[in-house]
Amino acid sequence: MWHQTEVTQILNIRYPIIQAPMAGSTTPELVAAVSNQGGLGSIGAGYYTPETLRRDIEDTQALTDKPFAVNLFVPEYNEVTFTQIEHMKEILAPYHEALGITPDDPAVSRDDTFLRLIDIIIESNVKICSFTFGIPDTEVIKKLKQAGMTLIGCATTVEEAVINAQAGMDMVVVQGFEAGAHRGSFLKNPLHSTVGTMALVPQATDAVDIPVIAAGGIMDGRGIYASLILGADAAQLGTAFLTTKESAAPDIHKNVILAAEEADTVLTTVFSGKYARGIRNDFIEDISVYEDDILPYPFQNQMTKRMRSEAAKAGRSDLLHLWSGQGVRLARDGEAAELFRELVEEVNKIAGNESYHK
Amino acid sequence: MWHQTEVTQILNIRYPIIQAPMAGSTTPELVAAVSNQGGLGSIGAGYYTPETLRRDIEDTQALTDKPFAVNLFVPEYNEVTFTQIEHMKEILAPYHEALGITPDDPAVSRDDTFLRLIDIIIESNVKICSFTFGIPDTEVIKKLKQAGMTLIGCATTVEEAVINAQAGMDMVVVQGFEAGAHRGSFLKNPLHSTVGTMALVPQATDAVDIPVIAAGGIMDGRGIYASLILGADAAQLGTAFLTTKESAAPDIHKNVILAAEEADTVLTTVFSGKYARGIRNDFIEDISVYEDDILPYPFQNQMTKRMRSEAAKAGRSDLLHLWSGQGVRLARDGEAAELFRELVEEVNKIAGNESYHK
Repeated sequence: MWHQTEVTQILNIRYPIIQAPMAGSTTPELVAAVSNQGGLGSIGAGYYTPETLRRDIEDTQALTDKPFAVNLFVPEYNEVTFTQIEHMKEILAPYHEALGITPDDPAVSRDDTFLRLIDIIIESNVKICSFTFGIPDTEVIKKLKQAGMTLIGCATTVEEAVINAQAGMDMVVVQGFEAGAHRGSFLKNPLHSTVGTMALVPQATDAVDIPVIAAGGIMDGRGIYASLILGADAAQLGTAFLTTKESAAPDIHKNVILAAEEADTVLTTVFSGKYARGIRNDFIEDISVYEDDILPYPFQNQMTKRMRSEAAKAGRSDLLHLWSGQGVRLARDGEAAELFRELVEEVNKIAGNESYHK
Repeated sequence: MWHQTEVTQILNIRYPIIQAPMAGSTTPELVAAVSNQGGLGSIGAGYYTPETLRRDIEDTQALTDKPFAVNLFVPEYNEVTFTQIEHMKEILAPYHEALGITPDDPAVSRDDTFLRLIDIIIESNVKICSFTFGIPDTEVIKKLKQAGMTLIGCATTVEEAVINAQAGMDMVVVQGFEAGAHRGSFLKNPLHSTVGTMALVPQATDAVDIPVIAAGGIMDGRGIYASLILGADAAQLGTAFLTTKESAAPDIHKNVILAAEEADTVLTTVFSGKYARGIRNDFIEDISVYEDDILPYPFQNQMTKRMRSEAAKAGRSDLLHLWSGQGVRLARDGEAAELFRELVEEVNKIAGNESYHK
């Protein structure tokens, strides 16, 4: 039996291992597999409609009676002009033509989707809610807390971790520079918050009273155990679970990761308008020269969405957002439950003489 | 008693803790203090003349009979035109005027300094030699090996680690993105080799048969222990030792680090022509706009050398190369020996039930 950490106690899970909420790539099968093994699965609901979220929660609950989390993107409202949109359309035109598609017009309304998702989470009896891209407003936090929800924030600097704690988050993911996909930075330009996991975790741990969850570059038992040594109460793994059979990432995406090297990824805004780490490809290379023309999130995301979905179908990794962390050489395929058991065994093996165990 | 690792056995040291060879900031007192405590001190001889090196080795040997290393920069030969130099002089003119100095002309000759330093190391009965910025040629390696020297290389990617092993290095420092001062990258642009320590160490460990030394963002017992868990055989700490009393870094440099936050550093070429991590200041901000005009190493280094030396005397942190890793909140002043004992105690405390100990 492993020692309990504050995180495993609060979340009521056996192992301090969390499957990162990879928006667009989680499935009920993935989330349930991790939770059933004694970790914490997370539904990446960042792009979900109320309907999708309701269905995903129901499907997950049908597969596990263990705790799992739902992750939401805290909404932000940027503005763009018609001219900016038309200009981006021109830039993207060759790609759309090549795929034989017409691009969507980005339709971003300040609707109440976020609040509806919050209500669904509460009604569905989900007990854990995590957030990316900032902190929801006081009313939302109050509502979730009154419903008995455990709240998990995300930080890329010590200051962001402190603000999460002050806002009432029960624990905070500190996301190191190595992490795949979107930077959770919400105070400064993400390029000013590029702190590696090895440096960030102990500094964040020292600064906040709430438990810290380490994320970024963690791919195996070594990374999980090292995270705990650095002062984290749990480790969150994204890329490691992205390549499992249950993940919704297209095969072409998984295969590129499985063949990649540790320095193949880069931070880019070309796909979504927000900085995210993915494996370098032609689209990043080509569009990066239009740096100043890239639309803010979520506009850029919407304008490249159909292209990416078609690229995935066509097996065109040159046009796909190949989100990935830096630990790619350690990526494995196989089933999520199998990966999870291997992770536990790897930690057991390192602990050896039961030092980390009871 | 701690477990021996391959590194502690080969180097004949007690603890797997190495003081990074910070060129320009080490002193015989610092190196000897670390070695006397059972770690490995390193003379940062990257900028040394034969005379300085001879004196530094003698002074160090007078203070310790324990092993220590000498670190050299593998020379590289770039070329610049007269026009480029004159242009950089113009860019730097306001700073030189403000300090009331005239800049040196960069005088870089393909002399035999490197080979003379190698000879001095051998003659002085130093037993450990480490390298930054690549791998010396076969003849040099052969000569050092025949003299019974242990050789330590430096890598920022798995590929660089593999090449170090193939070239006959006995062990290799893998330098994560968090590390302060110069990137040791030698195969690609350092901006393409920005892998965090958490991700880099296990991947490098898996790829080479020689022992790996973790570097980058390691500042305390947590970082040291985590490095060993990740698969390294030792941890190398630079910034942690830079702020000790024995370090030759100017007080203004130490004080800026002691007051800094984890996201205050940036990779820049403005001081030396090579990418290095330091705390953001006005000079970096101002000169970064002349990105294309920055001279290759060592020309840029020579052209800013007098300015930086005068800035240090004048307490002008805005013009100084404030090399630092990302773990700054964990920096401490005090004596090096005291820091070293604290590091050992911190590891002991984490190990708790003697799991890492014999």
